[in-house]
Amino acid sequence: MRLNEIETPADLRQLPVDKLQDVADELREYIIDTLSTHPGHLASSLGVVELTVALHYVFNTPDDRVVWDVGHQAYAHKILTGRREAFNTIRTYGGISGFPKRSESPYDAFGTGHSSTSVSAALGMATASVLQGNIQRNHIAVIGDGALTGGEAFEALNNVGQSKANILIVLNDNGISIDKAVGGLDQYLTRITSSRRYNKLKEHVWHKLDGSEGCRRHSRFLDFFQRLTSTAKTMAVGGSNLFESLGIRYFGPIDGHNIGQLVDMLRRLRDLEGPKLLHIVTTKGKGMRQAEENPVVYHAPGKYDSHTGEQIVSSEPGKPIRYQDVFGHTIVELAGQNPAIVGITPAMPTGCSLNLMMERMPERSFDVGIAEQHAVTFAAGLAAGGMIPFCNIYSSFAQRAYDQIIHDVALQHLPVVFCFDRAGLVGDDGPTHHGVFDLAALRPVPGLTICAPMDEHELRSMMYTAQLPGHGPVVIRYPRGCSEHADWQSPMKELDVGRGRQLREGRGNVAIVTLGTVGNDALRVAEEQDADMYDMRWLKPLDTELLDSIASRGYRRIVTVEDGVRNGGFGEAVVEYFAEHHPEVVPTIRILAIPDEFVTHGPVAQLKHDCRIDAAALRNAIAQ
Amino acid sequence: MRLNEIETPADLRQLPVDKLQDVADELREYIIDTLSTHPGHLASSLGVVELTVALHYVFNTPDDRVVWDVGHQAYAHKILTGRREAFNTIRTYGGISGFPKRSESPYDAFGTGHSSTSVSAALGMATASVLQGNIQRNHIAVIGDGALTGGEAFEALNNVGQSKANILIVLNDNGISIDKAVGGLDQYLTRITSSRRYNKLKEHVWHKLDGSEGCRRHSRFLDFFQRLTSTAKTMAVGGSNLFESLGIRYFGPIDGHNIGQLVDMLRRLRDLEGPKLLHIVTTKGKGMRQAEENPVVYHAPGKYDSHTGEQIVSSEPGKPIRYQDVFGHTIVELAGQNPAIVGITPAMPTGCSLNLMMERMPERSFDVGIAEQHAVTFAAGLAAGGMIPFCNIYSSFAQRAYDQIIHDVALQHLPVVFCFDRAGLVGDDGPTHHGVFDLAALRPVPGLTICAPMDEHELRSMMYTAQLPGHGPVVIRYPRGCSEHADWQSPMKELDVGRGRQLREGRGNVAIVTLGTVGNDALRVAEEQDADMYDMRWLKPLDTELLDSIASRGYRRIVTVEDGVRNGGFGEAVVEYFAEHHPEVVPTIRILAIPDEFVTHGPVAQLKHDCRIDAAALRNAIAQ
Repeated sequence: MRLNEIETPADLRQLPVDKLQDVADELREYIIDTLSTHPGHLASSLGVVELTVALHYVFNTPDDRVVWDVGHQAYAHKILTGRREAFNTIRTYGGISGFPKRSESPYDAFGTGHSSTSVSAALGMATASVLQGNIQRNHIAVIGDGALTGGEAFEALNNVGQSKANILIVLNDNGISIDKAVGGLDQYLTRITSSRRYNKLKEHVWHKLDGSEGCRRHSRFLDFFQRLTSTAKTMAVGGSNLFESLGIRYFGPIDGHNIGQLVDMLRRLRDLEGPKLLHIVTTKGKGMRQAEENPVVYHAPGKYDSHTGEQIVSSEPGKPIRYQDVFGHTIVELAGQNPAIVGITPAMPTGCSLNLMMERMPERSFDVGIAEQHAVTFAAGLAAGGMIPFCNIYSSFAQRAYDQIIHDVALQHLPVVFCFDRAGLVGDDGPTHHGVFDLAALRPVPGLTICAPMDEHELRSMMYTAQLPGHGPVVIRYPRGCSEHADWQSPMKELDVGRGRQLREGRGNVAIVTLGTVGNDALRVAEEQDADMYDMRWLKPLDTELLDSIASRGYRRIVTVEDGVRNGGFGEAVVEYFAEHHPEVVPTIRILAIPDEFVTHGPVAQLKHDCRIDAAALRNAIAQ
Repeated sequence: MRLNEIETPADLRQLPVDKLQDVADELREYIIDTLSTHPGHLASSLGVVELTVALHYVFNTPDDRVVWDVGHQAYAHKILTGRREAFNTIRTYGGISGFPKRSESPYDAFGTGHSSTSVSAALGMATASVLQGNIQRNHIAVIGDGALTGGEAFEALNNVGQSKANILIVLNDNGISIDKAVGGLDQYLTRITSSRRYNKLKEHVWHKLDGSEGCRRHSRFLDFFQRLTSTAKTMAVGGSNLFESLGIRYFGPIDGHNIGQLVDMLRRLRDLEGPKLLHIVTTKGKGMRQAEENPVVYHAPGKYDSHTGEQIVSSEPGKPIRYQDVFGHTIVELAGQNPAIVGITPAMPTGCSLNLMMERMPERSFDVGIAEQHAVTFAAGLAAGGMIPFCNIYSSFAQRAYDQIIHDVALQHLPVVFCFDRAGLVGDDGPTHHGVFDLAALRPVPGLTICAPMDEHELRSMMYTAQLPGHGPVVIRYPRGCSEHADWQSPMKELDVGRGRQLREGRGNVAIVTLGTVGNDALRVAEEQDADMYDMRWLKPLDTELLDSIASRGYRRIVTVEDGVRNGGFGEAVVEYFAEHHPEVVPTIRILAIPDEFVTHGPVAQLKHDCRIDAAALRNAIAQ
């Protein structure tokens, strides 16, 4: 049977075990081929090809539930579960999602995107099964060692051990969480997996038991195996198992690319009631040399040559720098001048370019792991200790730290500078990753200063301004992707907090009022339509003087534009101010913002069009 | 020296060790006496009296930093650090806060209120000290076993072990997190503390080492002690130490009420560089029989007789039931009818009255520990498995799960019913606990239905409506304290989602438009002023038909009232709708809502007055 004959896992289950590696090989080739021209998350999916085949082979999906933590490693899963043909549409507009999605397939038991949710979700589903009297159904959470550092995963582990639910946690240990995994947990896992003495003993025990008459029953086998390996682990690794401390039966580590052993172990565990954890060791990027050697770059490499594996980097001379790199270079520059500055990222040093600072000032820059909550309170502690922390978090991940931003930073008015990367519509990653809630969620928080640069010069100056004394907490949010100009290295200057600027004086009948990088499209429309144009810069405090001036100009039409949600956002703040202070201009206002629905994945330009915040929508609003 | 001669810890440090228990006894008596008439958090503060004395005795506070996790156990700390005289003002308007507060005292190194932040904050401060070249300063996080289940604490532990910072974590293990602590972690701690064999060995080792010549140096002593007890633990408890797995040196458990041993151990640990954890065992409510026997009730018992310890329960016949009990009784009633219903609370079964369901239907109600994030995703998993989870969280604690509400529930449109207790101003607990951000934070989230009952009948009917098929996720938010009527047990009825109601027809020149229980005060004003009165019931979807009708009535004045923040809240939503559809009525609108600042602690009526959302403010707004 070839891959193209497998429509569902039921077909896969017809095969003998010794044919499964062939399927895995073909799957891997199919993923490498397809993604070479249809970019996506490559290395993490390559690492779990064998696991994916084994899970669907052993378990009765979709009745048994598999939850893929984070979810960008679920490509092989998608291909095996009815989406082989559609696979080349992955992450494209109208195509399949880059993450598991309940509405896309019954095999996608739970939608993911943000990390560390899988154990909670699987425990919820397993508990539902118990309550419904279905004790046969299996529930599997596949979670990486990186995702396991997220606090929610621990909260769930603390509950799992107490539950009678039928749940299997597969710990996919590759030592990587996009960047290299960090923290005590990962060092602990490394001690287990790298102990030759322990692992030799474990293999020995396995083979002995496998041949033994008394261990035909899986539960018997596993009881013995767990007990003997636990003793061996105690002797070899220093006597500690974190998972068993929490009441979860631990098995492993085993080689996550040995499909025969995986199938064998999963079969045994399938018949074992209650919560258990299987620790497998995989290589991120497995089967593609470059991806194995450089899993950070090949996490999502863009296009590459499917034969050689080399990345195809489109060299466009004079192409503007990415916003994230403006952040990275600027924080290095600022930290060189101001010894109080430190940098913090929760597991995104490459993604947010804090790695530029980590290379130069390792003692002043901190990758705290996938741990947004800790990142923010840690920053608050640093600020309470007299430092000026720049805490860089992707906008949608910062939702994880909403309480800490309020409770630990804003309430204590500590000078933490939040840099929210990937704000606004992010494109291909879709609804889990769009950073569209930040403005509306944070505007209600007292004492925060919130701004959005229109271009890289503003970003630099906002960063410069934020670290000057006396500002309290500042949020700077900026988008994914390239900035506006090739000459980004302008001198930084102090900006007046809460003061916007008029960018263009036109015919005087229409005013366009924007916040952030949407101002660039708007400026082009303003020029085309000869409209007046204002870049507000600060959502909070809002420049009420500038708004007073705008109100006094007698515009026929005032249009606000933002790339955040409309409810509670920037446009609404402007309307609210005008309603109270200049009600006569209220009828002239039109708000362009993200409507009240989740936005799908696709090219940003297409999504902006759908959300009616693009140039065409602006022209329309002006013409009305 | 008597307690009233101790103005600061420097005075305390003049005493010989053998006098410290006297101070502790006096402190305990002072707390019991004062709180008997000035209610506050009693049992947790009683449990850490000896620890507090020992910490301030051994460490050089305030230069050394102590962070009290959650913070309601810091009463003895406040008394010893210059607030003895002010102690009887605790939690009163204008008095000292019930929680550590940076602006109140230099001894309050970091403000707390929500749990599980202390290790992150202490690590931040410790890291700042290292960067500033201050390697002498000590940083202590005091965290309970309950707070340790919060994910953020684990995120921090995962980082602490990697740090060279000078940080001591004191694990205050009393088996309680307001209610009894739950989960694998707590069972693990119980195994350690209850192992007679291990603890006997440990005592033995301690005494042997203490007398030994080679162990004069503290670091030497601790090295030996840790190594020997670790081996002993491995032998006796089954060979696992969770903290050492994470790279944190573990010491303990020791008796947290033996002040001599505490001082001895803290002195030794003070001189040990790097991260370490001291596990102490305490009795919540220590020194007061009733509080020891019933720490849940005596967590915050209100007034009591300081001699007998008996609670003074003011029996007011006909006094309305508390909203939390309306929730508790109603979910039992609903779950009796609908087998799909389950109940979830993150560690607040008594506080939210889910304990009523837990007693009757233990298999269908879940206390997941202090774990708001997990609570929400677990609920999402249950919903994905076909159940209808009622997830009850205090409004301000729900900020912890903001991302999970968006990402796991709303995006997947799963039928989770959120019941947010303690919404609006909560009174004495102050700014960390006011539930004033919920409406503004959740209004931007697509697909949520959000409502606030005006009274207990509406609460019951909203709960009834939410569990009917086809509603997706619903948020019901209601306040702390008593409901409106004594006869709360009305039959529940299905409400039209998104339909408000006119409650009163008056002279027709003024309309009062409210959301939630603030409607009750407003109704009295409406009667007094003969105004029209509308109870909107639903923030989302907003009843635009009713708003159209209001707009058409030609009111001279329309006043909205809410007990949430103004920015992005209910009033703003109304203004925004009118601005777009009925701009002519915009000049007539006044919004009464919480202004853009953190609200202090004090009686709710006083705080409503300060925030200008009370009856007087409403009369003013009408009169303008």
